[in-house]
Amino acid sequence: MTEERLISWLNSRPGTSALVDDCAFLDLGEPWAVTVDTQTEGIHIPEGLDEEVLARRLLAVNLSDLAAVGAQPAHAFLTLAAPPDFDHRRFFEGFLYDAIAVGLTLSGGDVSRGDRYTATLTLLGRRADGAERFMPRSNARPGDRLWLGGPVGRSHLGFLLGQLGARLDDSGVLSLPRHLPPELLAAAERAVRCHVEPLKHVKEQLGLGVDLVRLPRSAGLDVSDGLAKDLHRLCAESGVGAVIEAEAISLPEDDRALAEFLDADPLEAALGGGEDYVLLFALPADVEAPGMEAPGVEAPGVEAPGPGSGGCREIGRVTTGIVELNRCGRLRALPATGFDHLAR
Amino acid sequence: MTEERLISWLNSRPGTSALVDDCAFLDLGEPWAVTVDTQTEGIHIPEGLDEEVLARRLLAVNLSDLAAVGAQPAHAFLTLAAPPDFDHRRFFEGFLYDAIAVGLTLSGGDVSRGDRYTATLTLLGRRADGAERFMPRSNARPGDRLWLGGPVGRSHLGFLLGQLGARLDDSGVLSLPRHLPPELLAAAERAVRCHVEPLKHVKEQLGLGVDLVRLPRSAGLDVSDGLAKDLHRLCAESGVGAVIEAEAISLPEDDRALAEFLDADPLEAALGGGEDYVLLFALPADVEAPGMEAPGVEAPGVEAPGPGSGGCREIGRVTTGIVELNRCGRLRALPATGFDHLAR
Repeated sequence: MTEERLISWLNSRPGTSALVDDCAFLDLGEPWAVTVDTQTEGIHIPEGLDEEVLARRLLAVNLSDLAAVGAQPAHAFLTLAAPPDFDHRRFFEGFLYDAIAVGLTLSGGDVSRGDRYTATLTLLGRRADGAERFMPRSNARPGDRLWLGGPVGRSHLGFLLGQLGARLDDSGVLSLPRHLPPELLAAAERAVRCHVEPLKHVKEQLGLGVDLVRLPRSAGLDVSDGLAKDLHRLCAESGVGAVIEAEAISLPEDDRALAEFLDADPLEAALGGGEDYVLLFALPADVEAPGMEAPGVEAPGVEAPGPGSGGCREIGRVTTGIVELNRCGRLRALPATGFDHLAR
Repeated sequence: MTEERLISWLNSRPGTSALVDDCAFLDLGEPWAVTVDTQTEGIHIPEGLDEEVLARRLLAVNLSDLAAVGAQPAHAFLTLAAPPDFDHRRFFEGFLYDAIAVGLTLSGGDVSRGDRYTATLTLLGRRADGAERFMPRSNARPGDRLWLGGPVGRSHLGFLLGQLGARLDDSGVLSLPRHLPPELLAAAERAVRCHVEPLKHVKEQLGLGVDLVRLPRSAGLDVSDGLAKDLHRLCAESGVGAVIEAEAISLPEDDRALAEFLDADPLEAALGGGEDYVLLFALPADVEAPGMEAPGVEAPGVEAPGPGSGGCREIGRVTTGIVELNRCGRLRALPATGFDHLAR
């Protein structure tokens, strides 16, 4: 049974509330958004990551779900299983440093021994001042414009570099595969950091999410399983279709050169790579996306963001039809599995 | 670093709230108690358990933490990793059946593939009508009487039987080691069910917990790591000592005969066995423990509860001294590790 089928079956059972959005929306006296996620070494994340990197990554993936609904981080509950040589202090120092930075308090948890790192984080987020609601997936309407809160596909390039041996050491120093051409080094470093340490841009997305719930109408989610799949989810919950522009989601030229070196199709990476952790959202056509206060998430030495780097970009519009991709003026159905290079 | 030292270190750091009680007490507009716990096959629980048994056990261990503070179950968030042959429907049907029975709604979660069963459950419990507070560990005062909400040590006998091959099959039918004398069969069945399916008596403890928070003063926790260790925790948080009576915590005769057969000391099992999931609590000397509505948690065919079975029993009193055990009129210090047979 697939996860989607399981969830749809669960939604039909008594004893469950709607399992639809990135967070559950609960009235606990005041309105709260709650999300929970697990990360396991070797399954969701590469083996051998430093404890501080693990902590940041755990926070990032879960905070992204709060960003997706426009909630403000408040309480964290953490369970952690780890092998005997795991440096708990390093992990928790990293966790608390960034938790404090986004307004989270570690309010409870459980620590045990395991044969590998597994952590489950539950986050409670409050509704932002001036917001009447959280942001659901179901609010998109035909005619809306579609937006992304940051680049998609770059994280996948970082993942591919990891498979070639790219590593971040305990001090945050990056080692890249030796055969990488020098002109790709800057893009490679950016891609690896984007993949391994998504927290920096997730912090931006938290601010963006809060701006979005202060607008009269918005619908959205975070792109974690690939743009195509998450766009299908947004459209399914809103009962709409969409057209997105291949040009608008393409990465900057140095990313595309890196993709070519890695034998990856940049459009496939953008549509199906996943782990992007940026918001995908729909706004009424006459509403502009909020400006982002800190658009530069780039590595040191990189200039002001160009197309396909920081900031919100418009990528298409909501329709009454199916989910489609416009590439060089040709419309074709975009499957939830992403863009299939071979089927062009 | 031990878990206790880690928690004490965490409590000294900014970005954490007091990690002390079985639940975190949060003001989320109204007062809520939140608890989270993980169970992993092969570490916290035996391998090869049926999916429905796993679901009930997961609920039991976590509900016990809500019982410990007198909270009423409301919302559940579940993450589950399991191998390909795991029967998700069976698991969730079992989970939802019992969740509904205690007033829980499954409000969110996450399902993924793993090489073995690992589940993390986060529960939110509300304050009971007519209660002014949750029950903390820190409210015990010298002169209070100490009580247990059920028997301790029996679960440990079930654990030992499991090591000898006792199993519950998919239909709830028990198979016991063949060399067990017939006169021990009833006690053995009760012990295995107590260990593998603690949910029945945890449901009673939930009711007991709510009764306790309606009293003017009470302090307590659930016995999960052994009576001695959890008594030390209660005393440490309240800044008191205690004397408990060996006689008062002893199991009924058939349990003691089973212990002898299993080469276990019944007093050691009661003090250090763990996984009992009954409440240990202190009440002012002039206050009687609440009656329990359903004292019989016994296997079918067992008569009305005698000493050491269902119902609350008084086991000692709170002092200004250290934590001590009174055995046959002789007082001796009771270490947190439990009763040491060899040191008598």
